Amino acid sequence: MDLLKKMITEKGIVLKDGVLKVDSFLNHCIDPQLMKSIGKEFYKKFKDEGITKVLTLETSGIAPAVFTALELEVPLIFAKKTQSKNSSDLAYESNVHSFTKGKDYRIRVSKEYLLKGDRVLIIDDFLANGQAAKGLCDLIEKSGASLAGIGIVIEKGFQKGGALLREKGIRVHSLAIIENMSEKMISFRNEEEK
Amino acid sequence: MDLLKKMITEKGIVLKDGVLKVDSFLNHCIDPQLMKSIGKEFYKKFKDEGITKVLTLETSGIAPAVFTALELEVPLIFAKKTQSKNSSDLAYESNVHSFTKGKDYRIRVSKEYLLKGDRVLIIDDFLANGQAAKGLCDLIEKSGASLAGIGIVIEKGFQKGGALLREKGIRVHSLAIIENMSEKMISFRNEEEK
Repeated sequence: MDLLKKMITEKGIVLKDGVLKVDSFLNHCIDPQLMKSIGKEFYKKFKDEGITKVLTLETSGIAPAVFTALELEVPLIFAKKTQSKNSSDLAYESNVHSFTKGKDYRIRVSKEYLLKGDRVLIIDDFLANGQAAKGLCDLIEKSGASLAGIGIVIEKGFQKGGALLREKGIRVHSLAIIENMSEKMISFRNEEEK
Repeated sequence: MDLLKKMITEKGIVLKDGVLKVDSFLNHCIDPQLMKSIGKEFYKKFKDEGITKVLTLETSGIAPAVFTALELEVPLIFAKKTQSKNSSDLAYESNVHSFTKGKDYRIRVSKEYLLKGDRVLIIDDFLANGQAAKGLCDLIEKSGASLAGIGIVIEKGFQKGGALLREKGIRVHSLAIIENMSEKMISFRNEEEK
């Protein structure tokens, strides 16, 4: 998606620890017109998959996901991060390991919103090690719903998450895949889907 | 906003502790078509205010706020809740007291996104005691920007937040104001703005 790559190149900031900061249009300040375009792009890619729900993880996934759900004319569910150590009978839960923060957290979706007959599209802002996506897939599996695919705004192609998910046969579509990045330059992988 | 009131009446669940649960279309599962209508409604109310930024608080404010920002053709900023006790030179911060959780938390916006010349519309999902709105107003004041008004999806009219903000001369527009609620019934205030 050319507009997105342009914005990453022009406005993204690569920090020393390998973090790509896109706070100016995705993770703190949000460009709503870009989110609308992202929704249309995911719609084009996944419209024939019979999707009944879009699933994301709070917080930064919500904006791109809500526009995708609007285009697909289905509800959006956002999984919640919870600090509660008690599991709930009313929710599906999974553990997610955050490499950035060096710790685990739990994510949760109420059982009433993910149903056995659902066909679910996961949307998230970033894919790096794939831990959040793995957790969301786990919630879908626990519910008995089926996974239609995963739509990612920015994939860090030099980290292993995308490869791990694709190896499992999951359809992953990323709007921008970063091949390499340094403080001076960001380069993208040409093909966006394998 | 009739569609919203209808959904609150049909799908809202009043819990014993005075909590209104609207998880099925706003706070966990999100109805994107409703969010689009909400954005259009806030646009109609605030389009002549010269707004340059929409400001909300993660998480549930993001969906209605991003559609409002889309209509107004301005960026959305979401303030982040932070557990960090260290203040940052790079951010405006404020304390928010949560009556529901019985504790304080801090909210934060990077200084680079709220500027002196900005005219800011606050959008949030709920208004009850007004603590979150007060914290967001405080961030705007610290930045030197001006507050255009506050758009609220659901106001609990029987709690004091709305009155406190309006007494200060702040323009508050709520799409649905709940006058009374019990487990059996929810009633709305007729006028939506004073």
